[in-house]
Amino acid sequence: MNETVRPIDLTRRETFDHWTSVTIRFSDQDPLGHVNNVAIASYVEASRTMLIRPFLLQEKYPELDFALVHLEIDYKGEFTYPGTVDVGGRIARLGRKSFTTAYGLFVDDACVATAGSVNCFFDTSKRQGVTPPDDVRTLFERRIAAQPV
Amino acid sequence: MNETVRPIDLTRRETFDHWTSVTIRFSDQDPLGHVNNVAIASYVEASRTMLIRPFLLQEKYPELDFALVHLEIDYKGEFTYPGTVDVGGRIARLGRKSFTTAYGLFVDDACVATAGSVNCFFDTSKRQGVTPPDDVRTLFERRIAAQPV
Amino acid sequence: MNETVRPIDLTRRETFDHWTSVTIRFSDQDPLGHVNNVAIASYVEASRTMLIRPFLLQEKYPELDFALVHLEIDYKGEFTYPGTVDVGGRIARLGRKSFTTAYGLFVDDACVATAGSVNCFFDTSKRQGVTPPDDVRTLFERRIAAQPV
Amino acid sequence: MNETVRPIDLTRRETFDHWTSVTIRFSDQDPLGHVNNVAIASYVEASRTMLIRPFLLQEKYPELDFALVHLEIDYKGEFTYPGTVDVGGRIARLGRKSFTTAYGLFVDDACVATAGSVNCFFDTSKRQGVTPPDDVRTLFERRIAAQPV
Repeated sequence: MNETVRPIDLTRRETFDHWTSVTIRFSDQDPLGHVNNVAIASYVEASRTMLIRPFLLQEKYPELDFALVHLEIDYKGEFTYPGTVDVGGRIARLGRKSFTTAYGLFVDDACVATAGSVNCFFDTSKRQGVTPPDDVRTLFERRIAAQPV
Repeated sequence: MNETVRPIDLTRRETFDHWTSVTIRFSDQDPLGHVNNVAIASYVEASRTMLIRPFLLQEKYPELDFALVHLEIDYKGEFTYPGTVDVGGRIARLGRKSFTTAYGLFVDDACVATAGSVNCFFDTSKRQGVTPPDDVRTLFERRIAAQPV
Repeated sequence: MNETVRPIDLTRRETFDHWTSVTIRFSDQDPLGHVNNVAIASYVEASRTMLIRPFLLQEKYPELDFALVHLEIDYKGEFTYPGTVDVGGRIARLGRKSFTTAYGLFVDDACVATAGSVNCFFDTSKRQGVTPPDDVRTLFERRIAAQPV
Repeated sequence: MNETVRPIDLTRRETFDHWTSVTIRFSDQDPLGHVNNVAIASYVEASRTMLIRPFLLQEKYPELDFALVHLEIDYKGEFTYPGTVDVGGRIARLGRKSFTTAYGLFVDDACVATAGSVNCFFDTSKRQGVTPPDDVRTLFERRIAAQPV
């Protein structure tokens, strides 16, 4: 995944045109007095689902969803409750049965984390990976082409 | 707690003048396809900490905090990701070493849950309940007096 | 709920013959350095689902489940990671469309919390409360009769 | 990290001699009906803290802790509540101010996920990375030498 994600600087807000705001919760913090890494994984997921769901055409394909295959997160700096994390998300690459996504997490002007994930298209009835329909594929391709360089 | 909390209608937005917005996360949902009760407890806590912390004067009393003694939540209706929950909070009653709080949780115009809690003033160094200083007490009393009837 | 739950002493292990062990996680702790109340709600739920699911006969009634209507938790003492919480659960009362449950949470010999919940039988297809089938009802009644006094 | 972690096969139980068992919770599951990736990050953390804490000599060095710099998880197969995840953990490499760890997560005989993390030694008072004391360093080195090949 690295070769496709890394050339893009995920620590800059300009890299993203899709944003999901997540409010930090008191219980996201751990005994070190900062937001715990597990909570940060939930912020990334909030962005991922908002980013991808519109392209799955689930009204037309009710059994089409996606599942996480690989997740990686780089923690850039600690932050605390209260506050809001702005998660920028982008589709990095579309494969035949999978796609990669990339994220930047910001508190005000500071990038607090970056993340990447590999996801497979998933049939919720067969419980296995699938090749997406052509119109779904087209939606992904158009979105990728429209993203900031 | 019931006698002090219940006369106030927690299902109406007008009951509250303190609001905390919490964004719902995909992972807050469970296999029933709705937001899980455990996540709702974290929404109530987000409100509770925002409501109470300003009155603890922690810059002056760094070891003064509060701990939960009793929590109750009434679930009024199911709701789903994505969305935002507006949590209204109020201080219901001030005791000698404890205080009660009450909450209403709203998604748009619908009250999705109400909650109440009993909390004790807590010394984080001694790890036990304490009587709060007079100026903290005064802040609580003023806040209670200022709340909507 | 109080009148049915309270006569039974939930702080004694002898009150329970159904046990669910839950391992504490580092991320269950908050900046006060103890297990957060939100995590404790997840321990209660782990017990509740293990206690109730066998009686729902979901192989026969695939759309029958239950949903939480009311939850209350009393926090008896702080505890920390690592460790295991033994959650004792019992059915307190069976109504026409709902039932109440009661819990005691123990770390070694210490009761760290007690809890109670009101739950309704829930049709996952209609998304509403339902009256349970007679054989489900019978299973609940038998379980209640067999519990320790 | 890949070059140091990957030669070791994290999908085999024989790779590990440090085990942490984590009980799955109902609320760990999401609307896809399986354990959510965010919960899996909390399982990895449970192992990480149990694996590393004994080597930090926190009684002697109360301000020495560690913080997560990078986390990656590979999801190998879905699994559900109820059950227990056995998390095998090992220290992969010791650097001057950081160390890498590697994990295999198993449900019965199935490897459901593998993970790796980069962690820095962290001074909780200065809130920054630090070089560990020599005796801590020696403990890490001995542990690494004793691990299964």
